[in-house]
Amino acid sequence: MITCRHEIVGLVTEVGSKVGKFKIGDKAGVGCLVGSCHSCESCDQNEENYCSKFVLTYNSVCADGAITYGGYSDKIVVDQHFVVKVPENLAMDKAAPLLCAGITVYSPMKNLELNEPGKHIGVVGLGGLGHVAVKFGKAFGMKVTVISTSVKKREEAIDRLGADSFLVSSDPQQMQAAMGTMDGIIDTVSAKHNLLPLIALLKTKGRLVMIGVPEHPLELPVGPLLFGGKTITGSLIGGMKDTQEMIDFAGEHNITADIELISADYVNKAMERLAKADVRYRFVIDIGNTLNGA
Amino acid sequence: MITCRHEIVGLVTEVGSKVGKFKIGDKAGVGCLVGSCHSCESCDQNEENYCSKFVLTYNSVCADGAITYGGYSDKIVVDQHFVVKVPENLAMDKAAPLLCAGITVYSPMKNLELNEPGKHIGVVGLGGLGHVAVKFGKAFGMKVTVISTSVKKREEAIDRLGADSFLVSSDPQQMQAAMGTMDGIIDTVSAKHNLLPLIALLKTKGRLVMIGVPEHPLELPVGPLLFGGKTITGSLIGGMKDTQEMIDFAGEHNITADIELISADYVNKAMERLAKADVRYRFVIDIGNTLNGA
Repeated sequence: MITCRHEIVGLVTEVGSKVGKFKIGDKAGVGCLVGSCHSCESCDQNEENYCSKFVLTYNSVCADGAITYGGYSDKIVVDQHFVVKVPENLAMDKAAPLLCAGITVYSPMKNLELNEPGKHIGVVGLGGLGHVAVKFGKAFGMKVTVISTSVKKREEAIDRLGADSFLVSSDPQQMQAAMGTMDGIIDTVSAKHNLLPLIALLKTKGRLVMIGVPEHPLELPVGPLLFGGKTITGSLIGGMKDTQEMIDFAGEHNITADIELISADYVNKAMERLAKADVRYRFVIDIGNTLNGA
Repeated sequence: MITCRHEIVGLVTEVGSKVGKFKIGDKAGVGCLVGSCHSCESCDQNEENYCSKFVLTYNSVCADGAITYGGYSDKIVVDQHFVVKVPENLAMDKAAPLLCAGITVYSPMKNLELNEPGKHIGVVGLGGLGHVAVKFGKAFGMKVTVISTSVKKREEAIDRLGADSFLVSSDPQQMQAAMGTMDGIIDTVSAKHNLLPLIALLKTKGRLVMIGVPEHPLELPVGPLLFGGKTITGSLIGGMKDTQEMIDFAGEHNITADIELISADYVNKAMERLAKADVRYRFVIDIGNTLNGA
Protein backbone atom coordinates (compact mmCIF):
# COMPACT_ATOMS: atom_id res chain seq x y z
CA MET A 1 0.00 0.00 0.00
CA ILE A 2 1.15 3.47 -0.94
CA THR A 3 -0.06 6.32 1.20
CA CYS A 4 -0.08 9.83 2.46
CA ARG A 5 -2.20 10.88 5.44
CA HIS A 6 -5.42 10.65 3.45
CA GLU A 7 -4.31 9.80 -0.07
CA ILE A 8 -4.12 6.03 -0.15
CA VAL A 9 -3.75 3.62 -3.04
CA GLY A 10 -3.35 -0.12 -2.65
CA LEU A 11 -4.58 -3.52 -3.68
CA VAL A 12 -7.78 -5.06 -2.38
CA THR A 13 -6.90 -8.01 -0.13
CA GLU A 14 -10.33 -8.92 1.18
CA VAL A 15 -13.96 -8.04 0.34
CA GLY A 16 -17.12 -8.27 2.44
CA SER A 17 -20.05 -10.41 1.34
CA LYS A 18 -22.05 -7.35 0.14
CA VAL A 19 -19.22 -5.75 -1.80
CA GLY A 20 -20.01 -5.66 -5.51
CA LYS A 21 -17.67 -2.96 -6.69
CA PHE A 22 -14.32 -4.64 -5.99
CA LYS A 23 -12.67 -8.04 -6.08
CA ILE A 24 -9.43 -9.19 -4.51
CA GLY A 25 -6.42 -7.79 -6.36
CA ASP A 26 -8.15 -4.65 -7.68
CA LYS A 27 -6.22 -1.39 -7.51
CA ALA A 28 -8.24 0.83 -5.19
CA GLY A 29 -7.98 4.29 -3.68
CA VAL A 30 -9.23 6.04 -0.55
CA GLY A 31 -9.18 9.81 -0.25
CA CYS A 32 -10.10 12.21 2.53
CA LEU A 33 -13.46 10.66 3.41
CA VAL A 34 -14.46 7.25 4.75
CA GLY A 35 -17.99 8.01 5.92
CA SER A 36 -21.01 10.32 5.72
CA CYS A 37 -24.67 10.24 6.77
CA HIS A 38 -26.09 9.18 3.37
CA SER A 39 -29.35 10.98 4.11
CA CYS A 40 -28.75 14.75 4.03
CA GLU A 41 -29.15 17.03 1.04
CA SER A 42 -25.38 17.07 0.42
CA CYS A 43 -25.17 13.26 0.42
CA ASP A 44 -28.23 13.09 -1.88
CA GLN A 45 -26.40 15.36 -4.31
CA ASN A 46 -23.21 13.26 -4.28
CA GLU A 47 -21.47 15.92 -2.22
CA GLU A 48 -20.47 13.88 0.81
CA ASN A 49 -17.68 16.42 1.22
CA TYR A 50 -20.27 18.86 2.57
CA CYS A 51 -22.15 16.37 4.78
CA SER A 52 -22.06 17.74 8.33
CA LYS A 53 -21.51 14.20 9.61
CA PHE A 54 -18.69 13.15 7.30
CA VAL A 55 -15.92 10.97 8.72
CA LEU A 56 -12.42 11.95 7.68
CA THR A 57 -9.91 9.27 6.81
CA TYR A 58 -7.43 10.70 9.27
CA ASN A 59 -7.97 11.77 12.89
CA SER A 60 -11.76 11.57 12.86
CA VAL A 61 -14.25 9.56 14.93
CA CYS A 62 -16.35 6.82 13.32
CA ALA A 63 -19.97 6.12 14.29
CA ASP A 64 -18.72 3.24 16.49
CA GLY A 65 -16.32 5.53 18.35
CA ALA A 66 -13.17 4.27 16.63
CA ILE A 67 -10.52 6.82 15.64
CA THR A 68 -9.39 6.89 12.02
CA TYR A 69 -5.65 6.74 11.38
CA GLY A 70 -5.54 7.37 7.64
CA GLY A 71 -2.76 5.89 5.59
CA TYR A 72 -0.33 5.25 8.44
CA SER A 73 -1.00 1.51 8.60
CA ASP A 74 -0.53 -1.45 6.31
CA LYS A 75 -4.25 -2.17 5.97
CA ILE A 76 -7.45 -0.16 5.98
CA VAL A 77 -11.07 -1.30 5.98
CA VAL A 78 -13.41 1.10 4.18
CA ASP A 79 -17.06 1.10 3.05
CA GLN A 80 -16.92 0.57 -0.72
CA HIS A 81 -18.88 3.81 -1.25
CA PHE A 82 -15.74 5.69 -0.23
CA VAL A 83 -13.33 3.62 -2.29
CA VAL A 84 -12.55 4.45 -5.93
CA LYS A 85 -11.20 2.26 -8.69
CA VAL A 86 -7.76 3.44 -9.73
CA PRO A 87 -6.98 3.12 -13.46
CA GLU A 88 -4.44 0.42 -14.30
CA ASN A 89 -2.14 2.80 -16.17
CA LEU A 90 -1.55 5.07 -13.17
CA ALA A 91 1.37 4.22 -10.86
CA MET A 92 0.14 3.71 -7.31
CA ASP A 93 2.57 6.14 -5.70
CA LYS A 94 2.00 8.96 -8.17
CA ALA A 95 -1.79 8.44 -8.25
CA ALA A 96 -2.26 8.55 -4.48
CA PRO A 97 -2.07 12.34 -4.03
CA LEU A 98 -4.78 12.82 -6.64
CA LEU A 99 -7.26 11.52 -4.05
CA CYS A 100 -6.95 14.77 -2.13
CA ALA A 101 -5.03 17.29 -4.24
CA GLY A 102 -6.52 16.06 -7.52
CA ILE A 103 -10.15 16.13 -6.49
CA THR A 104 -9.66 19.45 -4.68
CA VAL A 105 -8.75 21.17 -7.94
CA TYR A 106 -10.91 19.03 -10.27
CA SER A 107 -14.15 19.55 -8.36
CA PRO A 108 -14.31 23.37 -8.59
CA MET A 109 -13.01 23.35 -12.18
CA LYS A 110 -15.91 21.09 -13.13
CA ASN A 111 -18.68 22.29 -10.84
CA LEU A 112 -18.06 25.99 -11.38
CA GLU A 113 -17.89 25.37 -15.13
CA LEU A 114 -14.36 26.57 -15.58
CA ASN A 115 -13.29 23.42 -17.41
CA GLU A 116 -14.21 24.43 -20.93
CA PRO A 117 -11.53 24.34 -23.64
CA GLY A 118 -10.27 27.82 -24.38
CA LYS A 119 -11.15 29.28 -21.01
CA HIS A 120 -8.31 30.98 -19.19
CA ILE A 121 -7.59 29.87 -15.64
CA GLY A 122 -5.10 31.21 -13.14
CA VAL A 123 -3.44 29.01 -10.53
CA VAL A 124 -2.12 30.84 -7.48
CA GLY A 125 0.73 29.02 -5.74
CA LEU A 126 2.75 26.17 -7.24
CA GLY A 127 2.80 23.46 -4.58
CA GLY A 128 1.01 20.18 -3.95
CA LEU A 129 -2.36 21.54 -5.09
CA GLY A 130 -1.11 24.03 -7.65
CA HIS A 131 1.05 21.70 -9.73
CA VAL A 132 -1.87 19.28 -10.07
CA ALA A 133 -4.20 22.18 -10.96
CA VAL A 134 -1.89 23.05 -13.88
CA LYS A 135 -2.02 19.46 -15.15
CA PHE A 136 -5.82 19.19 -14.94
CA GLY A 137 -6.25 22.64 -16.45
CA LYS A 138 -4.13 21.71 -19.47
CA ALA A 139 -5.91 18.35 -19.82
CA PHE A 140 -9.26 20.21 -19.94
CA GLY A 141 -7.87 22.31 -22.79
CA MET A 142 -7.73 25.53 -20.83
CA LYS A 143 -5.13 28.25 -21.03
CA VAL A 144 -3.30 28.05 -17.69
CA THR A 145 -1.38 30.88 -16.06
CA VAL A 146 0.57 30.27 -12.87
CA ILE A 147 0.66 33.20 -10.44
CA SER A 148 3.44 33.00 -7.87
CA THR A 149 5.45 35.21 -5.55
CA SER A 150 8.58 33.37 -6.65
CA VAL A 151 10.07 34.16 -10.05
CA LYS A 152 12.19 31.03 -9.62
CA LYS A 153 9.15 28.88 -10.35
CA ARG A 154 8.69 30.16 -13.90
CA GLU A 155 10.76 27.45 -15.55
CA GLU A 156 9.12 24.72 -13.49
CA ALA A 157 5.65 26.03 -14.33
CA ILE A 158 6.12 26.48 -18.04
CA ASP A 159 8.80 24.04 -19.15
CA ARG A 160 8.07 21.12 -16.89
CA LEU A 161 4.36 21.39 -16.04
CA GLY A 162 3.20 22.89 -19.31
CA ALA A 163 1.58 26.11 -18.09
CA ASP A 164 1.00 28.66 -20.85
CA SER A 165 2.22 31.64 -18.91
CA PHE A 166 3.55 32.81 -15.58
CA LEU A 167 2.95 35.93 -13.52
CA VAL A 168 5.07 37.16 -10.64
CA SER A 169 2.44 38.54 -8.29
CA SER A 170 4.82 41.13 -6.85
CA ASP A 171 5.39 42.68 -10.30
CA PRO A 172 2.72 45.38 -10.75
CA GLN A 173 3.43 45.76 -14.48
CA GLN A 174 2.92 42.06 -15.22
CA MET A 175 -0.21 41.97 -13.08
CA GLN A 176 -1.57 45.14 -14.70
CA ALA A 177 -1.02 43.74 -18.18
CA ALA A 178 -3.01 40.60 -17.30
CA MET A 179 -5.98 42.43 -15.75
CA GLY A 180 -9.42 41.22 -16.80
CA THR A 181 -8.12 38.19 -18.73
CA MET A 182 -9.07 35.20 -16.58
CA ASP A 183 -12.35 33.29 -16.40
CA GLY A 184 -11.39 31.76 -13.11
CA ILE A 185 -8.60 31.51 -10.57
CA ILE A 186 -7.79 28.58 -8.29
CA ASP A 187 -6.15 30.04 -5.19
CA THR A 188 -4.19 27.36 -3.33
CA VAL A 189 -2.38 29.68 -0.91
CA SER A 190 -2.85 29.21 2.82
CA ALA A 191 -0.60 32.10 3.85
CA LYS A 192 -1.93 35.63 4.23
CA HIS A 193 -2.16 37.27 0.81
CA ASN A 194 -3.79 40.10 -1.05
CA LEU A 195 -7.02 39.30 -2.94
CA LEU A 196 -7.36 42.63 -4.75
CA PRO A 197 -4.81 41.89 -7.53
CA LEU A 198 -6.37 38.46 -8.04
CA ILE A 199 -9.87 39.89 -8.33
CA ALA A 200 -8.45 42.37 -10.86
CA LEU A 201 -7.13 39.51 -13.02
CA LEU A 202 -10.67 38.15 -13.46
CA LYS A 203 -12.90 38.95 -16.39
CA THR A 204 -16.37 40.31 -15.68
CA LYS A 205 -18.31 37.64 -13.78
CA GLY A 206 -15.11 35.68 -13.19
CA ARG A 207 -14.69 33.37 -10.22
CA LEU A 208 -11.97 33.21 -7.63
CA VAL A 209 -11.99 29.78 -5.99
CA MET A 210 -10.35 29.46 -2.58
CA ILE A 211 -9.03 25.98 -1.83
CA GLY A 212 -6.29 26.99 0.61
CA VAL A 213 -7.29 27.95 4.15
CA PRO A 214 -5.46 30.99 5.51
CA GLU A 215 -5.50 30.92 9.30
CA HIS A 216 -6.55 34.55 9.65
CA PRO A 217 -9.18 36.43 7.64
CA LEU A 218 -8.07 38.04 4.38
CA GLU A 219 -9.01 41.55 3.31
CA LEU A 220 -11.99 41.60 0.97
CA PRO A 221 -12.34 44.71 -1.20
CA VAL A 222 -16.06 44.74 -1.97
CA GLY A 223 -16.18 47.42 -4.69
CA PRO A 224 -14.05 45.45 -7.19
CA LEU A 225 -16.37 42.45 -6.72
CA LEU A 226 -19.45 44.56 -7.48
CA PHE A 227 -18.10 46.41 -10.45
CA GLY A 228 -17.30 43.19 -12.26
CA GLY A 229 -20.10 41.00 -10.91
CA LYS A 230 -17.30 38.77 -9.60
CA THR A 231 -17.45 35.87 -7.20
CA ILE A 232 -15.33 34.31 -4.48
CA THR A 233 -16.21 30.68 -3.73
CA GLY A 234 -14.80 28.27 -1.18
CA SER A 235 -14.39 24.69 -2.29
CA LEU A 236 -13.52 21.68 -0.13
CA ILE A 237 -12.21 18.48 -1.77
CA GLY A 238 -15.12 16.85 -3.65
CA GLY A 239 -17.78 14.12 -3.51
CA MET A 240 -17.19 10.43 -4.22
CA LYS A 241 -18.84 10.46 -7.66
CA ASP A 242 -16.59 13.33 -8.73
CA THR A 243 -13.57 11.60 -7.18
CA GLN A 244 -14.11 8.50 -9.32
CA GLU A 245 -14.66 10.73 -12.35
CA MET A 246 -11.48 12.67 -11.56
CA ILE A 247 -9.29 9.59 -11.28
CA ASP A 248 -10.78 8.14 -14.49
CA PHE A 249 -10.04 11.45 -16.23
CA ALA A 250 -6.50 11.33 -14.81
CA GLY A 251 -6.14 7.82 -16.22
CA GLU A 252 -7.29 8.94 -19.68
CA HIS A 253 -4.90 11.89 -19.69
CA ASN A 254 -2.02 10.27 -17.80
CA ILE A 255 -2.15 12.83 -15.03
CA THR A 256 -0.27 12.00 -11.86
CA ALA A 257 1.25 14.01 -9.04
CA ASP A 258 4.96 14.75 -8.77
CA ILE A 259 6.12 12.99 -5.64
CA GLU A 260 9.04 11.86 -3.57
CA LEU A 261 8.57 8.25 -2.47
CA ILE A 262 9.87 7.63 1.03
CA SER A 263 10.16 4.70 3.41
CA ALA A 264 8.24 4.59 6.68
CA ASP A 265 11.34 5.29 8.74
CA TYR A 266 11.88 8.59 6.89
CA VAL A 267 8.63 10.06 8.20
CA ASN A 268 10.11 12.26 10.93
CA LYS A 269 12.66 13.73 8.55
CA ALA A 270 9.91 14.25 5.97
CA MET A 271 7.87 16.22 8.52
CA GLU A 272 10.86 18.50 9.13
CA ARG A 273 11.27 19.07 5.40
CA LEU A 274 7.51 19.65 4.97
CA ALA A 275 7.67 22.46 7.52
CA LYS A 276 10.22 24.13 5.24
CA ALA A 277 8.17 23.37 2.10
CA ASP A 278 11.12 21.30 0.95
CA VAL A 279 9.31 18.77 -1.21
CA ARG A 280 8.33 18.70 -4.84
CA TYR A 281 5.38 18.25 -4.33
CA ARG A 282 4.15 15.47 -2.06
CA PHE A 283 5.86 12.87 0.12
CA VAL A 284 4.30 9.44 -0.40
CA ILE A 285 5.14 6.61 1.99
CA ASP A 286 5.77 3.15 0.62
CA ILE A 287 3.93 1.56 3.52
CA GLY A 288 3.60 -1.90 1.95
CA ASN A 289 7.31 -2.38 1.54
CA THR A 290 8.68 -0.47 4.49
CA LEU A 291 6.29 -0.16 7.47
CA ASN A 292 7.34 -3.33 9.22
CA GLY A 293 10.95 -3.08 8.19
CA ALA A 294 10.02 -5.34 5.29
CA MET B 1 -41.47 64.16 -14.34
CA ILE B 2 -40.69 62.43 -11.06
CA THR B 3 -37.07 61.79 -10.21
CA CYS B 4 -34.21 60.88 -7.97
CA ARG B 5 -30.62 61.23 -9.11
CA HIS B 6 -30.86 58.23 -11.41
CA GLU B 7 -34.36 56.88 -10.86
CA ILE B 8 -36.55 58.81 -13.24
CA VAL B 9 -40.14 58.26 -14.34
CA GLY B 10 -42.04 60.61 -16.59
CA LEU B 11 -44.17 60.96 -19.70
CA VAL B 12 -42.73 60.86 -23.18
CA THR B 13 -43.06 64.33 -24.75
CA GLU B 14 -41.20 63.79 -27.99
CA VAL B 15 -39.84 60.82 -29.99
CA GLY B 16 -37.12 60.64 -32.64
CA SER B 17 -37.90 59.36 -36.15
CA LYS B 18 -36.30 55.95 -35.46
CA VAL B 19 -38.00 55.35 -32.11
CA GLY B 20 -40.35 52.38 -32.28
CA LYS B 21 -40.71 51.51 -28.63
CA PHE B 22 -42.48 54.65 -27.37
CA LYS B 23 -45.08 57.15 -28.42
CA ILE B 24 -45.87 60.56 -27.00
CA GLY B 25 -47.71 60.26 -23.69
CA ASP B 26 -46.26 56.87 -22.70
CA LYS B 27 -45.12 56.40 -19.11
CA ALA B 28 -41.40 55.76 -19.31
CA GLY B 29 -38.50 55.19 -16.93
CA VAL B 30 -34.74 55.76 -16.96
CA GLY B 31 -32.48 54.11 -14.41
CA CYS B 32 -28.76 54.29 -13.71
CA LEU B 33 -27.59 53.85 -17.29
CA VAL B 34 -28.05 55.92 -20.45
CA GLY B 35 -25.35 54.39 -22.64
CA SER B 36 -23.00 51.46 -23.27
CA CYS B 37 -20.78 50.22 -26.11
CA HIS B 38 -23.27 47.67 -27.54
CA SER B 39 -20.40 45.50 -28.80
CA CYS B 40 -18.65 43.90 -25.81
CA GLU B 41 -19.45 40.51 -24.29
CA SER B 42 -21.40 42.13 -21.44
CA CYS B 43 -23.56 44.15 -23.85
CA ASP B 44 -24.10 41.03 -25.99
CA GLN B 45 -25.37 39.24 -22.89
CA ASN B 46 -27.80 42.04 -21.97
CA GLU B 47 -25.56 43.06 -19.09
CA GLU B 48 -24.87 46.65 -20.04
CA ASN B 49 -24.32 47.20 -16.31
CA TYR B 50 -20.92 45.48 -16.69
CA CYS B 51 -19.90 47.20 -19.94
CA SER B 52 -16.62 48.97 -19.29
CA LYS B 53 -17.82 51.91 -21.39
CA PHE B 54 -21.24 52.38 -19.83
CA VAL B 55 -22.53 55.93 -19.39
CA LEU B 56 -24.19 56.64 -16.07
CA THR B 57 -27.32 58.75 -15.94
CA TYR B 58 -25.74 61.04 -13.39
CA ASN B 59 -22.28 62.67 -13.39
CA SER B 60 -20.87 60.69 -16.30
CA VAL B 61 -19.47 61.74 -19.68
CA CYS B 62 -21.28 60.87 -22.90
CA ALA B 63 -19.49 59.93 -26.16
CA ASP B 64 -19.96 63.51 -27.36
CA GLY B 65 -18.33 64.92 -24.22
CA ALA B 66 -21.54 66.11 -22.59
CA ILE B 67 -21.96 65.61 -18.85
CA THR B 68 -25.01 63.73 -17.63
CA TYR B 69 -27.10 65.41 -14.93
CA GLY B 70 -29.54 62.63 -14.11
CA GLY B 71 -32.98 63.49 -12.87
CA TYR B 72 -32.27 67.04 -11.79
CA SER B 73 -33.92 68.66 -14.78
CA ASP B 74 -37.41 68.86 -16.24
CA LYS B 75 -36.51 66.98 -19.42
CA ILE B 76 -34.09 64.24 -20.41
CA VAL B 77 -33.22 62.83 -23.84
CA VAL B 78 -32.26 59.14 -23.77
CA ASP B 79 -31.59 56.40 -26.35
CA GLN B 80 -34.69 54.18 -26.25
CA HIS B 81 -32.51 51.14 -25.44
CA PHE B 82 -32.03 52.61 -21.96
CA VAL B 83 -35.67 53.56 -21.42
CA VAL B 84 -38.18 51.11 -19.95
CA LYS B 85 -41.96 51.08 -20.18
CA VAL B 86 -43.49 51.65 -16.77
CA PRO B 87 -46.70 49.71 -16.07
CA GLU B 88 -49.82 51.87 -15.95
CA ASN B 89 -50.84 50.68 -12.49
CA LEU B 90 -47.66 51.90 -10.80
CA ALA B 91 -47.64 55.47 -9.45
CA MET B 92 -44.81 57.44 -11.04
CA ASP B 93 -43.31 58.65 -7.76
CA LYS B 94 -43.34 55.26 -6.06
CA ALA B 95 -42.12 53.40 -9.16
CA ALA B 96 -39.11 55.64 -9.79
CA PRO B 97 -36.77 54.16 -7.12
CA LEU B 98 -37.32 50.69 -8.56
CA LEU B 99 -35.13 51.72 -11.49
CA CYS B 100 -32.07 51.58 -9.26
CA ALA B 101 -33.01 49.95 -5.94
CA GLY B 102 -35.47 47.53 -7.55
CA ILE B 103 -33.20 46.22 -10.28
CA THR B 104 -30.26 46.07 -7.85
CA VAL B 105 -32.08 43.50 -5.72
CA TYR B 106 -34.07 41.81 -8.52
CA SER B 107 -31.07 41.07 -10.73
CA PRO B 108 -29.09 38.92 -8.25
CA MET B 109 -32.25 37.23 -6.97
CA LYS B 110 -33.00 36.12 -10.52
CA ASN B 111 -29.53 35.56 -11.97
CA LEU B 112 -28.18 33.69 -8.96
CA GLU B 113 -31.34 31.57 -8.91
CA LEU B 114 -32.45 32.60 -5.47
CA ASN B 115 -35.94 33.53 -6.64
CA GLU B 116 -37.60 30.14 -6.29
CA PRO B 117 -40.72 29.81 -4.14
CA GLY B 118 -39.87 28.27 -0.80
CA LYS B 119 -36.25 29.34 -0.76
CA HIS B 120 -35.14 31.29 2.30
CA ILE B 121 -33.45 34.61 1.73
CA GLY B 122 -31.90 36.99 4.23
CA VAL B 123 -31.87 40.75 3.71
CA VAL B 124 -29.17 42.61 5.62
CA GLY B 125 -30.06 46.23 6.31
CA LEU B 126 -33.53 47.74 6.01
CA GLY B 127 -33.09 50.90 3.97
CA GLY B 128 -33.69 51.99 0.40
CA LEU B 129 -32.41 48.71 -1.05
CA GLY B 130 -33.43 46.41 1.78
CA HIS B 131 -37.10 47.35 2.00
CA VAL B 132 -37.49 46.73 -1.74
CA ALA B 133 -35.60 43.42 -1.42
CA VAL B 134 -38.20 42.28 1.13
CA LYS B 135 -41.03 43.14 -1.26
CA PHE B 136 -39.49 41.34 -4.25
CA GLY B 137 -38.52 38.36 -2.09
CA LYS B 138 -42.10 37.95 -0.90
CA ALA B 139 -43.48 38.41 -4.42
CA PHE B 140 -41.18 35.58 -5.60
CA GLY B 141 -42.69 33.36 -2.90
CA MET B 142 -39.54 33.18 -0.80
CA LYS B 143 -39.27 33.12 2.96
CA VAL B 144 -37.69 36.46 3.84
CA THR B 145 -35.73 37.21 7.01
CA VAL B 146 -34.53 40.73 7.72
CA ILE B 147 -31.18 40.97 9.53
CA SER B 148 -30.57 44.31 11.19
CA THR B 149 -28.49 45.89 13.91
CA SER B 150 -31.57 47.75 15.07
CA VAL B 151 -34.24 45.88 17.03
CA LYS B 152 -36.49 48.88 16.43
CA LYS B 153 -36.96 47.81 12.82
CA ARG B 154 -38.67 44.51 13.68
CA GLU B 155 -42.20 45.87 13.53
CA GLU B 156 -41.51 47.71 10.31
CA ALA B 157 -39.98 44.61 8.71
CA ILE B 158 -42.64 42.14 9.70
CA ASP B 159 -45.89 44.06 10.13
CA ARG B 160 -45.52 46.64 7.42
CA LEU B 161 -43.25 45.07 4.80
CA GLY B 162 -44.35 41.46 5.26
CA ALA B 163 -41.02 39.81 6.15
CA ASP B 164 -41.40 36.37 7.70
CA SER B 165 -38.87 36.87 10.43
CA PHE B 166 -36.35 39.26 11.88
CA LEU B 167 -32.89 38.76 13.35
CA VAL B 168 -30.97 41.27 15.45
CA SER B 169 -27.43 40.75 14.23
CA SER B 170 -25.94 41.73 17.59
CA ASP B 171 -27.85 38.94 19.38
CA PRO B 172 -25.62 35.82 19.28
CA GLN B 173 -28.43 33.52 20.40
CA GLN B 174 -30.77 34.57 17.61
CA MET B 175 -27.98 34.36 15.05
CA GLN B 176 -26.88 30.95 16.35
CA ALA B 177 -30.41 29.57 16.12
CA ALA B 178 -30.68 30.65 12.48
CA MET B 179 -27.32 29.17 11.40
CA GLY B 180 -27.35 27.20 8.16
CA THR B 181 -30.94 28.09 7.25
CA MET B 182 -30.62 30.52 4.33
CA ASP B 183 -30.20 29.80 0.62
CA GLY B 184 -29.00 33.31 -0.02
CA ILE B 185 -28.42 36.67 1.62
CA ILE B 186 -28.68 40.10 0.02
CA ASP B 187 -26.29 42.36 1.91
CA THR B 188 -27.19 46.02 1.37
CA VAL B 189 -24.91 47.49 4.02
CA SER B 190 -22.23 49.98 3.02
CA ALA B 191 -20.83 50.47 6.51
CA LYS B 192 -18.08 48.26 7.87
CA HIS B 193 -19.57 45.00 9.13
CA ASN B 194 -18.73 41.45 10.02
CA LEU B 195 -19.24 38.82 7.31
CA LEU B 196 -18.60 35.75 9.46
CA PRO B 197 -22.06 35.62 11.11
CA LEU B 198 -23.69 36.15 7.71
CA ILE B 199 -21.68 33.30 6.12
CA ALA B 200 -22.77 31.15 9.07
CA LEU B 201 -26.45 31.84 8.32
CA LEU B 202 -26.07 30.30 4.85
CA LYS B 203 -26.86 26.69 4.04
CA THR B 204 -24.18 24.60 2.34
CA LYS B 205 -23.45 26.16 -1.05
CA GLY B 206 -25.40 29.27 -0.08
CA ARG B 207 -24.66 32.66 -1.62
CA LEU B 208 -23.96 35.97 0.02
CA VAL B 209 -24.62 38.78 -2.46
CA MET B 210 -22.97 42.12 -1.79
CA ILE B 211 -24.87 45.07 -3.25
CA GLY B 212 -23.65 47.72 -0.80
CA VAL B 213 -20.14 49.08 -1.21
CA PRO B 214 -18.22 49.50 2.04
CA GLU B 215 -15.48 52.09 1.62
CA HIS B 216 -12.80 49.93 3.25
CA PRO B 217 -12.16 46.19 2.78
CA LEU B 218 -14.13 43.81 5.00
CA GLU B 219 -12.62 40.82 6.78
CA LEU B 220 -13.10 37.58 4.84
CA PRO B 221 -12.85 34.38 6.90
CA VAL B 222 -11.87 31.81 4.26
CA GLY B 223 -12.34 28.58 6.24
CA PRO B 224 -16.11 29.03 6.71
CA LEU B 225 -16.46 29.60 2.94
CA LEU B 226 -14.61 26.34 2.17
CA PHE B 227 -16.33 24.14 4.70
CA GLY B 228 -19.74 24.97 3.29
CA GLY B 229 -18.79 25.44 -0.36
CA LYS B 230 -20.19 28.95 0.05
CA THR B 231 -19.95 31.94 -2.25
CA ILE B 232 -19.69 35.71 -2.01
CA THR B 233 -20.75 37.54 -5.15
CA GLY B 234 -20.78 41.22 -5.96
CA SER B 235 -23.72 42.49 -8.00
CA LEU B 236 -24.13 45.92 -9.59
CA ILE B 237 -27.61 47.13 -10.63
CA GLY B 238 -28.69 45.07 -13.69
CA GLY B 239 -29.00 45.08 -17.47
CA MET B 240 -31.77 46.75 -19.48
CA LYS B 241 -33.60 43.51 -20.35
CA ASP B 242 -33.73 42.60 -16.66
CA THR B 243 -34.78 46.15 -15.76
CA GLN B 244 -37.81 45.95 -18.05
CA GLU B 245 -38.60 42.48 -16.67
CA MET B 246 -38.25 43.79 -13.10
CA ILE B 247 -40.63 46.71 -13.60
CA ASP B 248 -43.16 44.46 -15.36
CA PHE B 249 -42.92 42.02 -12.44
CA ALA B 250 -43.40 44.96 -10.05
CA GLY B 251 -46.49 45.96 -12.02
CA GLU B 252 -47.96 42.46 -11.78
CA HIS B 253 -47.30 42.27 -8.04
CA ASN B 254 -48.00 45.93 -7.22
CA ILE B 255 -44.52 46.45 -5.84
CA THR B 256 -43.43 50.02 -5.31
CA ALA B 257 -40.89 51.75 -3.10
CA ASP B 258 -41.82 53.59 0.09
CA ILE B 259 -40.98 57.20 -0.54
CA GLU B 260 -41.29 60.76 0.65
CA LEU B 261 -42.26 63.04 -2.23
CA ILE B 262 -40.58 66.42 -2.00
CA SER B 263 -40.56 69.64 -3.99
CA ALA B 264 -37.44 70.87 -5.77
CA ASP B 265 -36.84 73.61 -3.21
CA TYR B 266 -36.61 71.01 -0.42
CA VAL B 267 -33.49 69.37 -1.93
CA ASN B 268 -30.91 70.94 0.39
CA LYS B 269 -32.90 69.99 3.46
CA ALA B 270 -33.35 66.49 2.04
CA MET B 271 -29.57 66.12 1.63
CA GLU B 272 -29.13 67.02 5.31
CA ARG B 273 -31.71 64.44 6.33
CA LEU B 274 -30.15 61.81 4.00
CA ALA B 275 -26.83 62.22 5.78
CA LYS B 276 -28.62 61.24 8.99
CA ALA B 277 -30.48 58.37 7.24
CA ASP B 278 -33.68 60.22 8.12
CA VAL B 279 -35.90 59.05 5.30
CA ARG B 280 -38.19 56.11 4.83
CA TYR B 281 -36.83 55.07 2.34
CA ARG B 282 -36.21 57.32 -0.64
CA PHE B 283 -36.73 61.01 -1.32
CA VAL B 284 -38.33 61.53 -4.73
CA ILE B 285 -38.48 65.02 -6.25
CA ASP B 286 -41.64 66.15 -7.98
CA ILE B 287 -39.62 67.88 -10.69
CA GLY B 288 -42.49 68.36 -13.13
CA ASN B 289 -44.62 70.36 -10.69
CA THR B 290 -41.97 72.16 -8.67
CA LEU B 291 -38.64 72.69 -10.49
CA ASN B 292 -39.52 76.03 -12.01
CA GLY B 293 -41.61 77.19 -9.11
CA ALA B 294 -44.62 75.83 -11.03
